[in-house]
Amino acid sequence: MEITTTPFPSSKKIYVDGELHPIKVAMREITLTPTHLANGNIEENPPITVYDTSGAYTDPNITIDVRKGLPRLREQWILDRGDVEILDEVSSDFGKERLNDPKTQHLRFEYNHKPKVAKEGKNVSQLYYARQGIITPEMEYVAIRENQRIEQLQNAPKGLANQHPGNSFGANTPVGKITPEFVRSEIAAGRAIIPSNINHPECEPMIIGRNFLVKINANIGNSIVTSSIEEEVEKTVWACRWGADTIMDLSTGKNIHETREWIIRNSPVPIGTVPIYQALEKVNGIAENLTWEIFRDTLIEQAEQGVSYFTIHAGVRLKYIHLTAKRVTGIVSRGGSIMAKWCLYHHKENFLYTHFEEICEIMKKYDVAFSLGDGLRPGAIADANDEAQFSELETLGELTKIAWKHDVQTIIEGPGHIPMHLIKENMEKQLKECDEAPFYTLGPLTTDIAPGYDHITSAIGAAMIGWYGCAMLCYVTPKEHLGLPNKKDVKDGVITYKLAAHAADLAKGHPGAQYRDNVLSKARFEFRWVDQFNLALDPDTAREFHDETLPAEGAKIAHFCSMCGPKFCSMKITQEIRDVAEKGMKDMSEEFIKAGKEIYS
Amino acid sequence: MEITTTPFPSSKKIYVDGELHPIKVAMREITLTPTHLANGNIEENPPITVYDTSGAYTDPNITIDVRKGLPRLREQWILDRGDVEILDEVSSDFGKERLNDPKTQHLRFEYNHKPKVAKEGKNVSQLYYARQGIITPEMEYVAIRENQRIEQLQNAPKGLANQHPGNSFGANTPVGKITPEFVRSEIAAGRAIIPSNINHPECEPMIIGRNFLVKINANIGNSIVTSSIEEEVEKTVWACRWGADTIMDLSTGKNIHETREWIIRNSPVPIGTVPIYQALEKVNGIAENLTWEIFRDTLIEQAEQGVSYFTIHAGVRLKYIHLTAKRVTGIVSRGGSIMAKWCLYHHKENFLYTHFEEICEIMKKYDVAFSLGDGLRPGAIADANDEAQFSELETLGELTKIAWKHDVQTIIEGPGHIPMHLIKENMEKQLKECDEAPFYTLGPLTTDIAPGYDHITSAIGAAMIGWYGCAMLCYVTPKEHLGLPNKKDVKDGVITYKLAAHAADLAKGHPGAQYRDNVLSKARFEFRWVDQFNLALDPDTAREFHDETLPAEGAKIAHFCSMCGPKFCSMKITQEIRDVAEKGMKDMSEEFIKAGKEIYS
Repeated sequence: MEITTTPFPSSKKIYVDGELHPIKVAMREITLTPTHLANGNIEENPPITVYDTSGAYTDPNITIDVRKGLPRLREQWILDRGDVEILDEVSSDFGKERLNDPKTQHLRFEYNHKPKVAKEGKNVSQLYYARQGIITPEMEYVAIRENQRIEQLQNAPKGLANQHPGNSFGANTPVGKITPEFVRSEIAAGRAIIPSNINHPECEPMIIGRNFLVKINANIGNSIVTSSIEEEVEKTVWACRWGADTIMDLSTGKNIHETREWIIRNSPVPIGTVPIYQALEKVNGIAENLTWEIFRDTLIEQAEQGVSYFTIHAGVRLKYIHLTAKRVTGIVSRGGSIMAKWCLYHHKENFLYTHFEEICEIMKKYDVAFSLGDGLRPGAIADANDEAQFSELETLGELTKIAWKHDVQTIIEGPGHIPMHLIKENMEKQLKECDEAPFYTLGPLTTDIAPGYDHITSAIGAAMIGWYGCAMLCYVTPKEHLGLPNKKDVKDGVITYKLAAHAADLAKGHPGAQYRDNVLSKARFEFRWVDQFNLALDPDTAREFHDETLPAEGAKIAHFCSMCGPKFCSMKITQEIRDVAEKGMKDMSEEFIKAGKEIYS
Repeated sequence: MEITTTPFPSSKKIYVDGELHPIKVAMREITLTPTHLANGNIEENPPITVYDTSGAYTDPNITIDVRKGLPRLREQWILDRGDVEILDEVSSDFGKERLNDPKTQHLRFEYNHKPKVAKEGKNVSQLYYARQGIITPEMEYVAIRENQRIEQLQNAPKGLANQHPGNSFGANTPVGKITPEFVRSEIAAGRAIIPSNINHPECEPMIIGRNFLVKINANIGNSIVTSSIEEEVEKTVWACRWGADTIMDLSTGKNIHETREWIIRNSPVPIGTVPIYQALEKVNGIAENLTWEIFRDTLIEQAEQGVSYFTIHAGVRLKYIHLTAKRVTGIVSRGGSIMAKWCLYHHKENFLYTHFEEICEIMKKYDVAFSLGDGLRPGAIADANDEAQFSELETLGELTKIAWKHDVQTIIEGPGHIPMHLIKENMEKQLKECDEAPFYTLGPLTTDIAPGYDHITSAIGAAMIGWYGCAMLCYVTPKEHLGLPNKKDVKDGVITYKLAAHAADLAKGHPGAQYRDNVLSKARFEFRWVDQFNLALDPDTAREFHDETLPAEGAKIAHFCSMCGPKFCSMKITQEIRDVAEKGMKDMSEEFIKAGKEIYS
């Protein structure tokens, strides 16, 4: 199996120690070259630490063996809490069946870890702990992880720690420092979640909430038409490399149980799924044959593998379905359409809605979070913000309260296709209806007329809704509406969403968010080409684009680029202006002639 | 010379006749396939007309010969006004010199058209005519061109003419119809311009103003480092094909006089330039050697070639320059830095500012519009909305009033690098300072950390500022900050900006803007794959992405795609739901079983 493990250029993995717990928080440090000042002096540029989702794959000191899976970072933290038991075998009927199926033997992950489950009467969710006042290692981990961007401002070169005050729509944006206690309080309030199934100890804790960095999710997964386990594992690692904060495995093809196992064991980020997809496979794709029992077994099966959040389309109520009939594109959510079909066929209420409390009981035993699905999201600009969509959102608000009653972590899924001027209403309504539970949207796409470029039509909406308060953005790749994304598409989608999320962080004014922009802009202005590449979200592409026109190594220290050439370089001229300005504005003319001749003869 | 002339798939050029003038307005009509209804009936889908910037190149009835240039559409309109004289030879010293230079003989366009200039005492600007109450053929042309999207709603299939009410920030958004008189009144008010140099009669009239469709500009041009005349002409045609409404020729390399001639003679859209670039070439790149006389000669040289708008950095005043010294990236505008250097060297006020009225005198003789340059625009998020930028904008407001005194059409250039939450302030300040003259921004980029993806970081800002009221968006390509764009980059930039401009049109609620989205979404929902491709901004890429996973021709009529496969297809299921809903919600269960079996057995 081919897995990408190369570290980023001029980057190394660093680990920051916890204070409350014996934890080591992984980050990436980018080393910079010094600035050569006009007066001949050299000015050092301190390294910059950036948030790192790439996991052990970019640490050359860790040996990667996908057959064994990643190191089990959280294993001891979980066991130390003393509230889980280790099962002798998996609980789900389907899990047992697959384990003993000789036909899938060759596909099976060597399963040398027994599943964990909460002890009788225990709740192992981070929300439960938070409400008990407990700061878990997971909470401290994310606090350190998120706080680092603020911490490093203390060593910032002159002027570079400054940033524009934002205008976050969140009421509780922290100023100055993200503390473990702040993390705990946000989780306790339901405003943030740490997806952290006790059966995915390989996962590095991360937090989803609008008072933290905006996160992104990448969807992967095979379909009946194409793709293999190998491809999906590499897509996972690849997506994390470029910045995916969580991965959703949306497999609907063959062997999705085994595919998921490989993905989870090798994923440094939480995995989400839509269990109804697999449940439908179990009834051979016939939606009306779905039953609560089959679905329940699927939840347990996936919870014991380590899925950290489940998309549950419990808001697709029977009474809402007719509202979609006059839409231009009806129901476009796969899960939503499956449940709608089931409801219509049986003329019964959605069994996910009627069994919601039973689902909560399962979720809290493994700390699986709800991602309450928007099965009635609009699939076209024409259908945005309509009655079907908003009725479902109101039901999701009702379900959020039930989930919270059980101390189950909850996020809410959002659209979809929304023109720019209707985006804010989505965010405001979601916060109101769902009592500030984190919002997690797909885009939204701001126009329908650019298939092939929907990573961009949706990045516009994603950046805006991130600014308005959306906590996590589900990526869209260039292949959206057209085909299954390949590795290139996954990367394009992830980088596009990473920049959209960052644009949102800047607009919200997250402390320290602008530091990387400032450092990169300084490098750009000083013609430190290699630093500019290395500070970019995608160093490889930045370098490749530069080299396409000016491939020579010498060009990377040249004080100009191919766009303007040396004579027209505004940045070169500006340096001359700055030199003059620093000498004061009096006698400017004479000074400038002199300075100019000396510096650029 | 290799020029792209293929028509778009299932598209033909149509020409709509004028009523006031004997004009024929070019548009593109896309033919659609019929819908096969579940009941076996066939429902026709009427063709849709879209705004078309591709010029004669996509009309197979017109023979293209780049050595002769495009048909001179406006020649007679201009002559019929009786206010121009035809010169025996070009007026500029440089123009004469180049015409007689044997060294450039092989590069020269066969110049068989003599330059036109306003008769003594005449003003030939569209602004002048508009204020005289005259509706020119140019005005009627743009009215028909812009009105078509509204007109065709009369034949729209049921429900598809609907769109979301927008919330345009413009006070004068027309409802129902764009009339020639409305066009005239917007121009007279200074809220819109039709860039239309009398020496570029090949150009198809277009309008820039916030009560019309949002326009986009593509920059092309060689630099000293790379590129040839052939490449630049093809880049022009290529950019227009994909949707560029104007082209700026930013050449700074060799033979820019000849390059420009070839571009203008073959461009169906107005051409803008930054004359200071060429003026600087004339003094061998030494900014301090620039003089008003050299600049003046350059203006006349380019005006007689047919440039329709000039970027003039007259707002870079001596007193503002020191404001840039403490920025992270100083001055990043090439023109701005050249003028700043000149000002500092001589310790004199910018000669573009002091000679501004003389520039107006030249502009009105040819109907060249001002694009007042933002030489002090921010080049980094850190420098956004600072004193340097806004001081210059105030000066541009002052200059707008002077230009209007001379009836010279005027637009205002804007930034640059701006975080999302500071974009609106730019638009509001521009409208206020410049009395609603159209705004024309570069992006803005909403973060600095994604070189290689700056078409996207900037499309986010562009869509937003377009929504807020920006009239034209200058594209950014993926190569921004890294290298000179090639053909692929030009296309990526144009399509990205086209979708951003369209997202803005939707958010503003331009009448009829949503029709193409609705038609495409209907095609998507009905699995009319080929129609979905053909309605896309980029049909080639849409088809190619689809075929990458499912290349068989049969897959283009399949009722599913590679993303979900047939069993999981939400759209297929929705059709079933819709069929049931149409039969009424009572007895739903039985009906559905029956319907489902019949339709999808």
